[in-house]
Amino acid sequence: MPGITEFGTLDLSCIRQRVDSALDDFFDTKANKVDSPEQQELIALLRRFLAGGKRIRSTLCTVGWHAITGHEALPPSAVLRTAASLELFHAFALIHDDVMDNSASRRGMPTIHRYLAARYADRRSPQQAECLGISGAILLGDLALAWSDELLHAAGLTPAELAGVLPIIEAMRNEVMHGQYLDVITTGRPTADTARALDIIRYKTAKYTIERPMHIGVLVGGCAAEAIRAAVSAYALPIGEAFQLRDDLLGVFGSPEQTGKSILEDLRDGKHTYLMALALRHADSDQRNLLYELLGNPELDEHGAAQIRGVLQATGAPAIVEHMISNRRRRALAVLADLPFPPPAIEALKNFALRATARIS
Amino acid sequence: MPGITEFGTLDLSCIRQRVDSALDDFFDTKANKVDSPEQQELIALLRRFLAGGKRIRSTLCTVGWHAITGHEALPPSAVLRTAASLELFHAFALIHDDVMDNSASRRGMPTIHRYLAARYADRRSPQQAECLGISGAILLGDLALAWSDELLHAAGLTPAELAGVLPIIEAMRNEVMHGQYLDVITTGRPTADTARALDIIRYKTAKYTIERPMHIGVLVGGCAAEAIRAAVSAYALPIGEAFQLRDDLLGVFGSPEQTGKSILEDLRDGKHTYLMALALRHADSDQRNLLYELLGNPELDEHGAAQIRGVLQATGAPAIVEHMISNRRRRALAVLADLPFPPPAIEALKNFALRATARIS
Repeated sequence: MPGITEFGTLDLSCIRQRVDSALDDFFDTKANKVDSPEQQELIALLRRFLAGGKRIRSTLCTVGWHAITGHEALPPSAVLRTAASLELFHAFALIHDDVMDNSASRRGMPTIHRYLAARYADRRSPQQAECLGISGAILLGDLALAWSDELLHAAGLTPAELAGVLPIIEAMRNEVMHGQYLDVITTGRPTADTARALDIIRYKTAKYTIERPMHIGVLVGGCAAEAIRAAVSAYALPIGEAFQLRDDLLGVFGSPEQTGKSILEDLRDGKHTYLMALALRHADSDQRNLLYELLGNPELDEHGAAQIRGVLQATGAPAIVEHMISNRRRRALAVLADLPFPPPAIEALKNFALRATARIS
Repeated sequence: MPGITEFGTLDLSCIRQRVDSALDDFFDTKANKVDSPEQQELIALLRRFLAGGKRIRSTLCTVGWHAITGHEALPPSAVLRTAASLELFHAFALIHDDVMDNSASRRGMPTIHRYLAARYADRRSPQQAECLGISGAILLGDLALAWSDELLHAAGLTPAELAGVLPIIEAMRNEVMHGQYLDVITTGRPTADTARALDIIRYKTAKYTIERPMHIGVLVGGCAAEAIRAAVSAYALPIGEAFQLRDDLLGVFGSPEQTGKSILEDLRDGKHTYLMALALRHADSDQRNLLYELLGNPELDEHGAAQIRGVLQATGAPAIVEHMISNRRRRALAVLADLPFPPPAIEALKNFALRATARIS
């Protein structure tokens, strides 16, 4: 979703540069401390992986800080480093996610496990190289998680700030892993259970991507008030849900040139998305059988995908999901109107809400 | 290695019980906080996984505390919880290690990925179930890592103690992941590079299993003196190396009934152990070709394993490794004689050194 972080009148491109600098400093320090070529390789690999990110989480964290402090100037480095640590955590989540989904590429580059499999293919069987790639990616993900801790602990927050942030970080980790686990155990066997599909969206995306980064930003901005945190959630959760609902729609109906995502992957995996659960719920028995037959088939081709799209449209599910997206966007924007935040922060959050839920197909 | 933690006159079985209680309390608190059956399932799974552990790291951490404080009474709960957090970290390392090594069982039970694959096999292809098992194990490992942090942060250490412990924890994580990565990229292609094999042992085992847990124990015991930490390393590193050298010997020559480990696994994986690197270095070209042909063959059978053992013996590598083990044990025991620790701690460390390096075949 290119341009999703260009939201509002705050100078977010400048914030992004500072977050990137914080990451660069972290990697430079790491690279200066280690001597083995393998450690250097892992540092370089993670640095390159992070280079293509949209920085949604670090930006929302920083906007949370702006919202409380009212400063339009750049946040202090402790806040930028805290925000940057969320990007290292996200690298961990994505690298493991790519292994779990067996994805071949991300942001137009080979995924870490594919890259390492190719890098170490020499004098190994394809299967050995594949295993090596997976093992290396698991380890690089683990390292990114450990390093997100290191960056957070060394961010320069006061002891009181750090003590306030840690429980939110812990909640965030538990939530995203819970969401991922629900995703994993439902993948390959989608059902008509829409409540479960919403749970996955909430934990895997809405809380992790929007709510918790904002909670952290608000907290390091100096506000620990429960009412403000709840108001942030009232904005963040519907927007996060709408964001994922849009993503799921684009995963089936979007244009791969614009989304950068294969249109077959979710279908071949048999992802238990809300869209699919809803379609299964509204399908007649012929439609349901066809969906069960096609979803999760690793050999699914463009013709099969077109059949699925036909059934989805016939059940009315995409239109209902569009309606849910509008609904959630409206609710989030209504919350914004009541938030006691300065206009530039409100503007940024409003633009984010619009962009995160917009059609791109 | 049954009984390895029964070392010395300190009441280590009581320490072990208290560490287990700290883990139980942690899991109970977790279980009370979550409501979904999937979260309960993951908690139960991790609890069961941890039940069979030898508690080497938590025990050595606690012995480090005893060594500094001189108390023979039980350490305070903050120390026990810190020690217990090492066991949660170790669960993370083992669960991911089992995925990376594609191991079928651990401590006589199915590994986590195998268990989950069987648990969710219904209406999935064998390949889908296998992928699900791997994904679930990656996530449960991630969760164990996150929870080791939670237990450490909530252990009740003073801010100064925690600030002292964190850099050691960070070093430990980096070291074990570095060692694992070296292991991963050399597996399947063992060479005569003995220096690299020693690096793997040092990072993956000696530092992670012995040195860092003791450093943490000594620190929470109140000693931050560099000289004491260096003396601990002078004991810990040779014992840790000897421990792994013994493990590698047993992995090829041991009796599976006594070690609980398959004698084929390391050979089928083509692990770059010190033993193997040494054999390749001393082998003539026929022997070397035979080793290259057999090592890393996933179909290797008992006959092939016997051929490998024959070549190893003919190169003299096992005898050299035995000699290295004795040498390292002697060096570690000599260090102990000079350590300013109270007799019960010295006794415990001496017994550990003897047991960790003893033959069991």
